[in-house]
Parts: sequence; C-alpha cells; structure tokens
Amino acid sequence: MGDVIKLENRQSSGAAGETPVERRRRSGRAAEHGPRAPAISKYLNLVNPTAKSAVLSEDALEAVHQASLTILEEIGMDIILPEARDRMKAAGAEVTPGTDRVRFDRGLIMEMLASVPPRFTMHARNPVRNVEIGGDNLVFAQVASAPFVADREGGRRAGNREDFRKLVKLAQCYDIVHTTGGYPVEPVDIPAPARHLDCLSDLVKLTDKVFHVYSHGRQHNRDGIEIARIGRGIPMEQMEREPSLFTIVNTSSPLRLDAPMLQGIIEMSARGQVVVVTPFTLAGATAPATIAGALVQQNAEALAGIAFTQMVRRGAPVIYGGFTSNIDMKTGAPAFGTPEYMKAVIAGGQLARKYDIPYRTSNTNASNTLDAQAAYESAFSLWALTQGGGNFIMHSAGWTEGGLTASFEKFILDVDMLQMVAEYLTPLDVSADALGLAAMRDVGPGGHFFGTPHTLARYETAFYSPILSDWRNFEAWTEAGRPTTYDHANRIFKEKLNAYEKPPLDPAVEDELDAFVARRKEEGGIPTQL
Amino acid sequence: MGDVIKLENRQSSGAAGETPVERRRRSGRAAEHGPRAPAISKYLNLVNPTAKSAVLSEDALEAVHQASLTILEEIGMDIILPEARDRMKAAGAEVTPGTDRVRFDRGLIMEMLASVPPRFTMHARNPVRNVEIGGDNLVFAQVASAPFVADREGGRRAGNREDFRKLVKLAQCYDIVHTTGGYPVEPVDIPAPARHLDCLSDLVKLTDKVFHVYSHGRQHNRDGIEIARIGRGIPMEQMEREPSLFTIVNTSSPLRLDAPMLQGIIEMSARGQVVVVTPFTLAGATAPATIAGALVQQNAEALAGIAFTQMVRRGAPVIYGGFTSNIDMKTGAPAFGTPEYMKAVIAGGQLARKYDIPYRTSNTNASNTLDAQAAYESAFSLWALTQGGGNFIMHSAGWTEGGLTASFEKFILDVDMLQMVAEYLTPLDVSADALGLAAMRDVGPGGHFFGTPHTLARYETAFYSPILSDWRNFEAWTEAGRPTTYDHANRIFKEKLNAYEKPPLDPAVEDELDAFVARRKEEGGIPTQL
Repeated sequence: MGDVIKLENRQSSGAAGETPVERRRRSGRAAEHGPRAPAISKYLNLVNPTAKSAVLSEDALEAVHQASLTILEEIGMDIILPEARDRMKAAGAEVTPGTDRVRFDRGLIMEMLASVPPRFTMHARNPVRNVEIGGDNLVFAQVASAPFVADREGGRRAGNREDFRKLVKLAQCYDIVHTTGGYPVEPVDIPAPARHLDCLSDLVKLTDKVFHVYSHGRQHNRDGIEIARIGRGIPMEQMEREPSLFTIVNTSSPLRLDAPMLQGIIEMSARGQVVVVTPFTLAGATAPATIAGALVQQNAEALAGIAFTQMVRRGAPVIYGGFTSNIDMKTGAPAFGTPEYMKAVIAGGQLARKYDIPYRTSNTNASNTLDAQAAYESAFSLWALTQGGGNFIMHSAGWTEGGLTASFEKFILDVDMLQMVAEYLTPLDVSADALGLAAMRDVGPGGHFFGTPHTLARYETAFYSPILSDWRNFEAWTEAGRPTTYDHANRIFKEKLNAYEKPPLDPAVEDELDAFVARRKEEGGIPTQL
Repeated sequence: MGDVIKLENRQSSGAAGETPVERRRRSGRAAEHGPRAPAISKYLNLVNPTAKSAVLSEDALEAVHQASLTILEEIGMDIILPEARDRMKAAGAEVTPGTDRVRFDRGLIMEMLASVPPRFTMHARNPVRNVEIGGDNLVFAQVASAPFVADREGGRRAGNREDFRKLVKLAQCYDIVHTTGGYPVEPVDIPAPARHLDCLSDLVKLTDKVFHVYSHGRQHNRDGIEIARIGRGIPMEQMEREPSLFTIVNTSSPLRLDAPMLQGIIEMSARGQVVVVTPFTLAGATAPATIAGALVQQNAEALAGIAFTQMVRRGAPVIYGGFTSNIDMKTGAPAFGTPEYMKAVIAGGQLARKYDIPYRTSNTNASNTLDAQAAYESAFSLWALTQGGGNFIMHSAGWTEGGLTASFEKFILDVDMLQMVAEYLTPLDVSADALGLAAMRDVGPGGHFFGTPHTLARYETAFYSPILSDWRNFEAWTEAGRPTTYDHANRIFKEKLNAYEKPPLDPAVEDELDAFVARRKEEGGIPTQL
C-alpha cells in the first residue's frame, strides 16, 4: 500500500515479466493453436481525432469544479465502510467521529488527482484486444447488468446463463465491441454464491477480450482478479503493472459510497486494476433538477471516489465516469439520449479533460422496443459521446429500456451504429487519386461514373456497407415483405451466433481456470453476496 | 442588371419602403386581425454556437478548392442556355464557339465570389417568421419535391393537392419548421399549366412562412416572385432589397447547368431573390467514387452557379448547397445519412465557410418506412449538419425513402428530432441557483430531490418533453398495446392537423392574390412546363 504504480501505458506483449513456465506455455500455445491475432481490423484501436465540443465556458467549467469541491469540503460524503474512513482520515480527510460523514479539503482532492495516470492500457488475454484508455482513444464495451433479456421470438424475460452466453458470444463476434462490460444480462439461474465464478470463467473462455468484475464484496473482486491473471497466464507482479480488468464503482447518489463499492476500490486499486467511478446523478431524483446541479454533484462524487483510489495506491488506474441524465418531471421516468443527456455527456468530458483523467460515458436509450426511438436516443448519445471525447463507453451495444433489458436485436443495431461512428472518424482520403481530376476529365460534362476504371478500382471498399440499412427500392422492399430494421437485426443476430468461433485458449490455462473455479466452488463461492 | 444589391441583413418590418396604401393595409390588418406575431417561440431564430467540426485539414481544404478551380478552368461546364453563355462571356468566361462548353478562369470565379453577401434575411409575410441566413444561424425547411406521399392508413401513393395541403398545414403548426421547402409532395391532380399558381397561392394562404419557387422556366419564377410580393403587400423595389423567396438550382452533375436552372438564376438573382445552388454529386454515379472527388466536383459546380448569380447581379443573395453522398456500390442505390454523407456534409461546411457563403445541406435517410433506420440515418444527418455548420437545411422534416416519399409520420419524428437539436444548442443554465448547492445542502447524503422546492420550481420547464418518446415502464407500455414511435407519430400528425389554425391574412392581400391567380390561369398558366 502507498507505493506508486508505474503502469505500462502502451500495448505490451507482457513477455518481459514472464517466468520460464509462462514463456513455455505461450510459445507452446502459439505452436499448437497458431497465432492468436485475428486479421487486424480497422475497428480495433479506434482514435477519435475530432475537436471536442464544449457546452461549458471556461468560467462555467471552473464554477462547476469549484462548487463540487465546496460540496466535498462543506457537506462531505457518507462513507459506509470503517476501513475506508480510516484510510481517508490517514490521508488527511476530516472524519466526523461516530458518523459516516467524511469531508475533503479541496487541496487534498487535487493532491490525490495529481497521481492519476492520464492514459493506460487494459490488457486482454489476447494482446490484439488490448485497449488504450485515455487521450483520443475510443473503446466500446458491451451492455452490462440488465436484469432482463429480449429478442423478438422469446420476448422479454429474466436473464439466464444461456442468454448470458449468447450475448457474450456476440460480443466476441464484432471487433467494434472492444470489451465486455459486465454480465450483459444477469443469469439468475446460476446460484448466487458461485455465479461470478461461472460467469467470469465464461467471459475468459468465450471471448479473448478485457472484462469486468463486479464490486459486490472483497472476495468477488479477488476472484475476478485471479481469474483474469489465470486467463492471461502471467504472474501477479505483472498484473499489477498491467491492468487487466475493470470494475464499475457507482456512488449511491446523493453523496454516499457504500461498503461493497469502497471494498471494490480497495481491492482493485491496491492491485493496479481499473476502477471506473460513476455517480448515477439523475437530475430531479438523485441530483438537483438542473443539469448544471447534477453535474456539480456528479463531479463531487466522482472526485471523491477517484481520490480514494489514489489514497489506496498512488498511480492506480482510474476512469472518471459520468452518467448524468434527468427524470421526466411528469412521470418520474428516467430519460436517456435526450438533449439534456447530450449536454451532460459533453460537460462530463470537459471536466474529465480538465483533470486529465480518462472519461467513461454510455450509449443510452429508454425505448421498450427496437423502434425509431431506440435509434434516435442511441444516435444522439453517440453524437454526444463522440463530440464530448468519451474514452470508455459502457453499454455500447445491446442496452435498451433504460438499462433494464439487454436486447439481441438492439445489440446488432448498436454494432452497426458504432461501426458508422468508427467510419466517420476515419480520415478522409484526399490523395491526388481520390480527388479524382483524371476521372472527371475522362467522364466530362453530362457523363456518368458507373463502371469507369476509377469507380471499378474502388468497387469493394469505397464506402461503408451497413449491416442493417435496407436500401432497396420500394418495390423490391415490398416484394421482400417490407422488413424493418428490427426484422433484419433479428435475422442477423441468429446468423452471427451460428457463425461464432470460440477464440483459442491454451489448454493449460483452461485447466488452471477450471481448477480454480472448482476449488472456489468447493469453498462455497461467496456464501453471502453483499 | 449589373447594379449592386444592397440587402437588409437584419430583420426589418419593411415599413421604410411602404407606399401609403401598404401602410394603411398593414395598420388595418393589425387592427382587424390583431397582432400577427404568435407568442415568441424559442425555436424561432435558432443559433448554432457549436464550434464547427472539420474533416479536411487546411491543406486538404485548399487542395479541394484548387482542384475544383482547375476543373472549371480546364474542363469547364456545359451551359445549356445561349443567354447564359452570352452573360458568362461578357463577364470574362471562355465560351467555345458552337458548343455549350464554358471555361472559367480561377481569377474570374474568385472575383465573382467577392460580392456574395455572407448573411442576409429572407422575409416572410409575417415578420416573426423572417429567417436569418448565414453566420451561426440555423434554419430548417420542410421536405420538398417528393413524388409520393405516405401515411400508415393510406400507404404510399402519388401526391395530390389534399396531401400537399395537409403537409403544408403541418409545416405551419411547428415553429421549428422555419420555412416550407417547395411542394412537400407534387400534387399531380392539379393540371400542370396552373399547378404552380394553385400551390404557391396555398403556400401564402396556409402558412405565413418563407417559401420556395421552382426553377421550371422563366414564367414560373416570375409568377412566384409576384405571388411573394403580393403576400407581403409590398412594392417590387422593396422586394429587391428584401429577399422573400428562394429557388433551388440543381446542376445536372457532372458539370452541366440546364436551361431552366440558368433561367431561374437570371430571374431570381436579377430581382434580389435567393438562389440555392446545389449540385447532386452522388459518388460512384454522378461524381467520382470517392467522397473527396465528389466534393471537388460539388465545389466546382456550386462555384460556377454561384459565380453566375453574381454575373447577373453583384450582391445577389445566394446559398452554397451541398448534396454529396454515395451509391451503394453493390446495388447502385443512393445512400444517405451514412458516415460518408456525414463527412461530405462537414467538408461542405468547411468549403462554404472558406468562401463566407451561407451553407445549405439536408436531413436525409433512405428508409422505406418509419423504423430504426429512418431514425439513425436522420440523426446522423442532423449530427453532421449541426457540427458542420449548416445554415439552411432542406428536407428537415418529412423526407424519407431517399426523397421519393413525403411521410406524415416521418414529419413528426423529424420535428421532434429538430426540437431536440434546438434544445441541445440552447446554452446550459449555469447560474448559482442552477448549480444547486443550496438544494444539495438541504437534501444531503442519502436523500432525494423529489418534491424539493428546487425541483418543484422547475417542474414545468426543466427538461425537454419529447413529442414521441415513450418512457413508460414496460408494464404500462404493454398495457397500452406496445405502441412504437411509428404509432405515436401516426396519432400525433392527425391530432395536429385537427388543431391547425390558418394564419391571419389581410383580406385585401387575399383578394389581390386570388385575382392574380385567376388572371394568370385565364392566360393559360404556363402552357409548356419546362
């Protein structure tokens, strides 16, 4: 504790820290299963070169910042874990004896923020799936934590392991889904004490991407870290230098951090793993009924959580999470993908960049089905998170109904939209050949460019070919039965699942993983899930 | 001809130039019908303060610019009207004798661009509907020129006057639809020779907004100008200072301007009315199969048309139009609202700003119905045109199926999305009260903001209340029959039509308008529509 982590902030094969055993395993794996790298996809390692938008002036940004520090100084937070309060006190915070209340001097907060790494790599068991966090990097994580799952045939139902596994397999199928994001749906048919063991094991086996562990108690985090370590086949010292999994820490807004979340920070930050501190500040419910007020509160809660990661270990990798939206004042329903959400996402990016901390936001919508609303709320979310400089995007694919349902069809819709964002961010080719003067000379006024050499040379690759968009003319579309986007998405998710291929996994790693899971189950898993 | 127009570039009541008769009419009108101004809506006079995005570097922008000038110098354009070629020759262009080909020296083009007004006002018959064009102003025009119309009950059908009138009435119902954009659907049940007389008369009577006249031959433009003049109740000298209607001039890409379009420029620019020069450069069909190449061609064609407006009359108001997209290379179908479209829209804005000319672009999609595709393609279009600095947005509401169909339901969907864009562009309230410290002190850690004074004070106005978004929980939504966005839009367009109110019109103006239409019909309208 208290020692400073020095992170590798570039992709690394991890070879430097390997023991001879690991090195042998790795080379054996390569020989037996061929190289692990898929053909490099343009959707890996996305960079967002767009100049970022601002909805707060410099003065307003400073006002939000100062107001949030005033809150931490004068109101403080309720910190529902004695160990955390002790650590905070040791770091210089003011703990009111006999209560949960902790107040933080603004100097203390800023001192803690100073050691947050502005960029780092999250390491996957397959290095081509490593993700760069921070700067202009843009990483999309799958839907997480929905209690329900839906597809057209099966309707909306409670989550189970089969649907969990199907959704995880779909995440593996698309390079634009850079990481999973948690359990895409909660598999309630797996008994709670061992659920995380089965689920994390599935995440390692069914994908080769970075994954998430819930902060539902210390042991939960520890099991997750061990499973990630086994999956990567590396020693713990290397894990501590190379963050390999992440946890979401939600505050209980307003201004409270509960025990499991605080334990999550302690377990993860101490071992150099990634904490994503995300207040859920819903203006009019868990936060003031203004976007500015909700942002102030978001910022106070996020900074408190981030500061705590640095109290646990200076240099621990952490992400600034924003999840500010509002309720519909007439019904109390949460609203997502709205103009207010857009402003909150962009303002959150301004705040995170002010502190030079990577920024997490989300692809949201509140629709109950895959209709125009699902699309426009998500598209507005994508607009804001792209222009706002989101680095790590939770719920990128499959989230619907305000997070209550993971939808198979929405997953495909989102993948298509994410790919469109990636294509939009791809630099325009302005080479002399692309400018096309020679082609225009050849064709001349009144001609056309169908079938010209300049066109034929680009036949395959000129433009993005969407997964879902139906561009047939009305007559052909009518003849095909007038399918909607929903129909296409329903067909495609099933086709894609049929084409799923399990990523290679070193049998030695698989054995070690199975043995760990079996042993932990014998020990009873986690008898009482916090 | 050749004299310089000095435009009023701010809203003006027009009173300065009125004759005593007009002044009397105006005051009589006010007395009889009450003030014309509706309650000022926040959706009028939209300003887009966003820093504009760029997809072209400064060098690339210059390369596109220079390449387009090279095209005009070395390839030239086919100009299919002797009078236009004569005017171009007189201005210094090189006309190849015995052909339609005209080449333009780059110095000549740039000299002509120098007199284009960077901003101007388009004057509606109701001054509160005046629209500011250029700068950071953002004006939304309704769908135009669809051959088909659709609603759920009636299906997709050829346009007729009843549907035309319904769509025009809907445009009047929403302040966010700042102008009509032409005939929202072509009413083929009105005989062609007098169609424009009936339609333009409807536009004046059913709305009080700026409207469009087609460039389908000289007489067409002249009738439109006279109808706009009668509608405003002003003398022609005033019309020439105060642009009051607009025409779209499409090039016949590649590199051709047809006779009616050239006549449109001559008639409109000579009288100080607005020309929107819009090449239809579809990469892979009417333009090279690269977005950069299509942009070069778009720019060449737009600059030639814009330069011609200034050859007709220096200072004539003109708008730089971009409509670059691409075809699906596998089927030849036009694609809209794609990543390529987004880049083209943003690059077009960079070009228009380089010349300091107002920029027209569009809200596009290629869906055959009101599904997720219709929404995401439109939302991506709105993203690009907002970030790209579009000033005058054609087809903002109701356009679907790549422009073939005006959809009643899509109109409502678009209105909702346009209002969301407007709300997004509204500055965030960061007053001390909005920052909410007092509210947070009152509520404290672990509380909630439901029903607090800070919340109750904002109950009505805190957040945008969408027209269509269905935020009910799954159970309530199921009980309601699981309506989609399409269902809601279908209901709402009918409710809105029932609530339509005809805007007041001075009876003297109405009489003059009817008399003009009757006289022109007696004269045979336009016997041969070009």
